[in-house]
Amino acid sequence: MVNAHRTIRQFTDQPLTATQIHDLIAAAQHTATSHYLQSFSIIHITDRELRGQIAAISKQAYVDANGELFIVIADQHRAASLPEPADFVAVGADAPNQALGSTDKFIQATSDGLLATQNLVATAEAAGLGTVILGSILNDPLRLIALLHLPTLTFPLCGVIVGHPDQTPQFKPRMPQSLMAFENTYQPPVDWQDSLAAYDEQVHHYYATRDTNRREESFRHLLANGAKMTPAKRGELYRALRQQGFLTEA
Amino acid sequence: MVNAHRTIRQFTDQPLTATQIHDLIAAAQHTATSHYLQSFSIIHITDRELRGQIAAISKQAYVDANGELFIVIADQHRAASLPEPADFVAVGADAPNQALGSTDKFIQATSDGLLATQNLVATAEAAGLGTVILGSILNDPLRLIALLHLPTLTFPLCGVIVGHPDQTPQFKPRMPQSLMAFENTYQPPVDWQDSLAAYDEQVHHYYATRDTNRREESFRHLLANGAKMTPAKRGELYRALRQQGFLTEA
Repeated sequence: MVNAHRTIRQFTDQPLTATQIHDLIAAAQHTATSHYLQSFSIIHITDRELRGQIAAISKQAYVDANGELFIVIADQHRAASLPEPADFVAVGADAPNQALGSTDKFIQATSDGLLATQNLVATAEAAGLGTVILGSILNDPLRLIALLHLPTLTFPLCGVIVGHPDQTPQFKPRMPQSLMAFENTYQPPVDWQDSLAAYDEQVHHYYATRDTNRREESFRHLLANGAKMTPAKRGELYRALRQQGFLTEA
Repeated sequence: MVNAHRTIRQFTDQPLTATQIHDLIAAAQHTATSHYLQSFSIIHITDRELRGQIAAISKQAYVDANGELFIVIADQHRAASLPEPADFVAVGADAPNQALGSTDKFIQATSDGLLATQNLVATAEAAGLGTVILGSILNDPLRLIALLHLPTLTFPLCGVIVGHPDQTPQFKPRMPQSLMAFENTYQPPVDWQDSLAAYDEQVHHYYATRDTNRREESFRHLLANGAKMTPAKRGELYRALRQQGFLTEA
């Protein structure tokens, strides 16, 4: 049952085998993909110094510890690298790759990459491995792009660490479906504030009773605080996308 | 094994039970989520007329046939709807929701929604159900947004149809890992053109021998043609994102 998911941030020092790594990437590859184009790539980080630099960007010490680190890349560069991309010329005239940089093509590659990420994660979890998905690699997108030598028409989406779990965290309760599952139109229930208050009690209980790092917390506070907690250089995501050749309509 | 994935586009007329639908949405909810914010929503399309309109947008007849149709929504609106979003005011002064419309928050909500989509899909497949993910609902984003009454700070990511399979399509071969899995930096192999040529033969064979709709096709041609095939109104994705209050840095 996929509901058994919990994020693992602490791994034993047992590395994955080459076969395991191959199979996880194969699982990512066998995800549904828009127009069969497989518009993503995966970079396996094996260089410890580089990994330390990525951990510094993410500001999470566990990123520099055990487990295999992968970075998932939205990739329209492959299509642009063909020696005779004749059809592109017909699209973009003087700028043959322009269409590949459209918001549409960015969203397509992002979808391919993120769906594949979750398939890799589900496959790892089904095999008894632990995973954590790292949005935090985007805390300094321009630096990460430089570190990974990402060419035009590629963009880093997230990191994933996979390894043998060395912790058993508790499950975190999710919001009631009435707050996020609607019928036919976007229509939260009239009493959604009451549902939110009830859920807040669950979240409060979770944070007050969990094994480590207990604190006073509520979902409402997390929601209200989310925008404020943004690290400064995440504000460069738009600029980074444009630098990489995406969002050409802007 | 997750590698057993194949997209199903034809379903029997046996509907899913309410419990199945609940469990699939629960699987989506239990996906890893950025900062525990669960920044996505799911709309279940049960109105046949609305579904016909969505099928018209997607230009795929099977979208209007059997199976349950869900639309996955990137959602920062929930956070903006709190009665006392005091912390937002500290961020955005006169425009309290501005930070929630940042490229960062769009990418965060997009990640949450797409990872959850794949978890729903993997859960359905593990239960013997079939699925298809629909990027095609974005062929006319402004119309879809209007049809679903999507408020500011929400955006449709994809559709998913889930049902009882009524076909057994062949597996589609994926590209060799040497073309998409790199170590430490983005670095395709020197002989990547040769690998592509070898893969092209596999793709050619697949299209030439599959059960239905056989044709002359190659991966190279699909790649080169991808940008050209874009339906006209997908060019409005950028405008639609801005209309919904995202990409505020633009």
